[in-house]
Amino acid sequence: MSQAEADALVLSDDPEHPANLIPELCASFYHLGWVTGTGGGISIRQGNKVYIAPSGVQKERIKPEHIFVLPFPRPSPDVFLRKPTIPLKESACTPLFWNAFELRGAGSCVHTHSQHAVMTTLLWSGDVWQVSHLEMIKGVRIGGMGKALSYLDTIIVPIIDNTPFEEDLKDSMAQAMVKYPDAAGVLVRRHGVYVWGADWEKAKTQTECLDYLFEVSVKMKLAGLLS
Amino acid sequence: MSQAEADALVLSDDPEHPANLIPELCASFYHLGWVTGTGGGISIRQGNKVYIAPSGVQKERIKPEHIFVLPFPRPSPDVFLRKPTIPLKESACTPLFWNAFELRGAGSCVHTHSQHAVMTTLLWSGDVWQVSHLEMIKGVRIGGMGKALSYLDTIIVPIIDNTPFEEDLKDSMAQAMVKYPDAAGVLVRRHGVYVWGADWEKAKTQTECLDYLFEVSVKMKLAGLLS
Amino acid sequence: MSQAEADALVLSDDPEHPANLIPELCASFYHLGWVTGTGGGISIRQGNKVYIAPSGVQKERIKPEHIFVLPFPRPSPDVFLRKPTIPLKESACTPLFWNAFELRGAGSCVHTHSQHAVMTTLLWSGDVWQVSHLEMIKGVRIGGMGKALSYLDTIIVPIIDNTPFEEDLKDSMAQAMVKYPDAAGVLVRRHGVYVWGADWEKAKTQTECLDYLFEVSVKMKLAGLLS
Amino acid sequence: MSQAEADALVLSDDPEHPANLIPELCASFYHLGWVTGTGGGISIRQGNKVYIAPSGVQKERIKPEHIFVLPFPRPSPDVFLRKPTIPLKESACTPLFWNAFELRGAGSCVHTHSQHAVMTTLLWSGDVWQVSHLEMIKGVRIGGMGKALSYLDTIIVPIIDNTPFEEDLKDSMAQAMVKYPDAAGVLVRRHGVYVWGADWEKAKTQTECLDYLFEVSVKMKLAGLLS
Repeated sequence: MSQAEADALVLSDDPEHPANLIPELCASFYHLGWVTGTGGGISIRQGNKVYIAPSGVQKERIKPEHIFVLPFPRPSPDVFLRKPTIPLKESACTPLFWNAFELRGAGSCVHTHSQHAVMTTLLWSGDVWQVSHLEMIKGVRIGGMGKALSYLDTIIVPIIDNTPFEEDLKDSMAQAMVKYPDAAGVLVRRHGVYVWGADWEKAKTQTECLDYLFEVSVKMKLAGLLS
Repeated sequence: MSQAEADALVLSDDPEHPANLIPELCASFYHLGWVTGTGGGISIRQGNKVYIAPSGVQKERIKPEHIFVLPFPRPSPDVFLRKPTIPLKESACTPLFWNAFELRGAGSCVHTHSQHAVMTTLLWSGDVWQVSHLEMIKGVRIGGMGKALSYLDTIIVPIIDNTPFEEDLKDSMAQAMVKYPDAAGVLVRRHGVYVWGADWEKAKTQTECLDYLFEVSVKMKLAGLLS
Repeated sequence: MSQAEADALVLSDDPEHPANLIPELCASFYHLGWVTGTGGGISIRQGNKVYIAPSGVQKERIKPEHIFVLPFPRPSPDVFLRKPTIPLKESACTPLFWNAFELRGAGSCVHTHSQHAVMTTLLWSGDVWQVSHLEMIKGVRIGGMGKALSYLDTIIVPIIDNTPFEEDLKDSMAQAMVKYPDAAGVLVRRHGVYVWGADWEKAKTQTECLDYLFEVSVKMKLAGLLS
Repeated sequence: MSQAEADALVLSDDPEHPANLIPELCASFYHLGWVTGTGGGISIRQGNKVYIAPSGVQKERIKPEHIFVLPFPRPSPDVFLRKPTIPLKESACTPLFWNAFELRGAGSCVHTHSQHAVMTTLLWSGDVWQVSHLEMIKGVRIGGMGKALSYLDTIIVPIIDNTPFEEDLKDSMAQAMVKYPDAAGVLVRRHGVYVWGADWEKAKTQTECLDYLFEVSVKMKLAGLLS
């Protein structure tokens, strides 16, 4: 594929094209405090193409021409359908996003460094965070992909330990996803959270619901409202 | 009515047309944390027409063509003056908004999932939340529709229990509205709040006042400033 | 004066004209949580003209044609240089803004319902709020109009009791201003704060400094960092 | 140099020109609560030119023509390559920014009055703030300029005492930078923080990481999660 053909993969007048959506959504996430300091982001998979932002850049200033396009499935970590022409590396979250695509068939995966997620992992010291009887639970789907949880369900998100290198989370995240097939995300202790969905809308709104639940459950815990 | 005639009900150059206002206001509410994760919203009634947003969509991205128009009164739940041409369902809050229109004669009703409302329902464990001697009380009208409360009045909002299905709140919300005729809203435990007013401006500003009062009363409670 | 001549007082292409600034600043204050629910605002005096927003309107949606222009000094409460053509009443804060213009010679006065101001008045139960040794003190001028306070100064703002009608605060606010000539503002218990300055820039930035100091002093108090 | 030649130093169509970036970034910092009340800001050095904002102005309303350009190195405090034509003084932070340029070879330095920084200096009463085992540590470079810290590193930022005049911080800040060569910033007790980097992107993102770490460590401390 020529560079012009490759670049065509990220140039579109459609505001809902993944290469336009990722910059817009990352800017929005920045203002929510989810992706400051270059961390976090969102990946979108459409069929056999995966769109991914660069590593180590200001997430509120990404441009479509900075987006990587990867094949799905991906024969090896060296294969790209399209790379930016300036020297950038694909997000270090790529193997983690891949877990969501491979193990759940997700169409999108969000990663945040939200302080609500981090505080949750500090106040819930075990292997899982769980709450029940909160309306926002209904905005999350079983396994992130199935039917919506009920108000009467207990929502559970596994918590895995952080590692010095993001890619080294791949196996423990995958194990947690297998062990908790109904979970719509995985918390990483002292780090943040991964949340996925069938498409970018569902990945985003489920991240909003989980972030809200993390925040309100932290408030409840600190107010002595959770035993 | 033809689809073109029906669509004309939601297409207008006037920024204050309900089909333009609902998207704008929902986007604004999103940034206040009131309607993240697809929850919450605002309905506007103008005479015998009620404008309602779809269910389960990102509330900050609604477009005028997504708006439902319902007749008021409504002969049956199946009657619409206008439905979007793409497959969407009207907000699950519709029967609750209707309570405000029917029982109070309201012209608009707001529903939020504000964490301040939820924390209020957790820290006030009885049937009502109440505070007094706060200036913002003056921004709320008796029953949501009458004259403004005084600084010397105690403001009372009933709290009802949540149900698995939003529409099942209809009866208990109606009962609370009848039992507390001076209340400008109804809190739903572990869920959020419904607030109404004579028009969208008053529904919105009263929601702002109540949300402020929920927030500051939670702070006061946690600081030991309320007995 | 004809209505056209009167309207010319509020119509200008200059973004720094008071009738353009007041809407812009009120919208900005709305997003800071200072003027939600129709409360609060800013008045600007330029020489013998005072520009004031309407009462009871959404402060983030004011338009230049909604602005009142009053003469300074004002022979009686009934005299206006210009009134909006739609039925609106001038801000109920007008007599309080006047205190700042008359007693301090201020060119602008801000009123907020900031929760930080309200919490301050609840956690400081006496006649004054005071803190020392915080850098932001340097952004406030002696009496709101003189030279800047030093980092070594203790900043003092008197707290007056709230009244059911805003205009009834006029005398107690004036007394507090006379008793505390070095104060750059007056807190109103369970209500908010008035802050003034030589011009709109100084009134606004001093309000920002005081609001910051209220917020951080509340945090310090709740953390046990203030005796 | 003529005034026209000097003005050319701050007039550019390139949005990434320092004279355009400083206003944009300061406006963004204002909305983060870092530079309200005229405090704080960012300076950018490109080779032998340093771009600096004025002192005592609203940081969210700076215009390119307000920017000072100073030579680096600077023969004396009186030498400017370009000054605004209206009466303004260069930021009082100039000598502190210079520490970062001279002692670290930084290309940019940020100063904030963030309340998270201030609370950190109150809750860590010794000479340094330090935390470990938080993912956001990885967004900060050794000494602000070297390779990135690891998740396994303890991040340390020295805390110096505040002084009545900002320029009097120069020596104690320099001493702290020499004593803690690996620190990417210096906290000023009851005042704020200085953070630098190789360029404006790295200074900004490192400030974001540190501010996040200050905030979350304050939350952890208040929740009893730090011994």
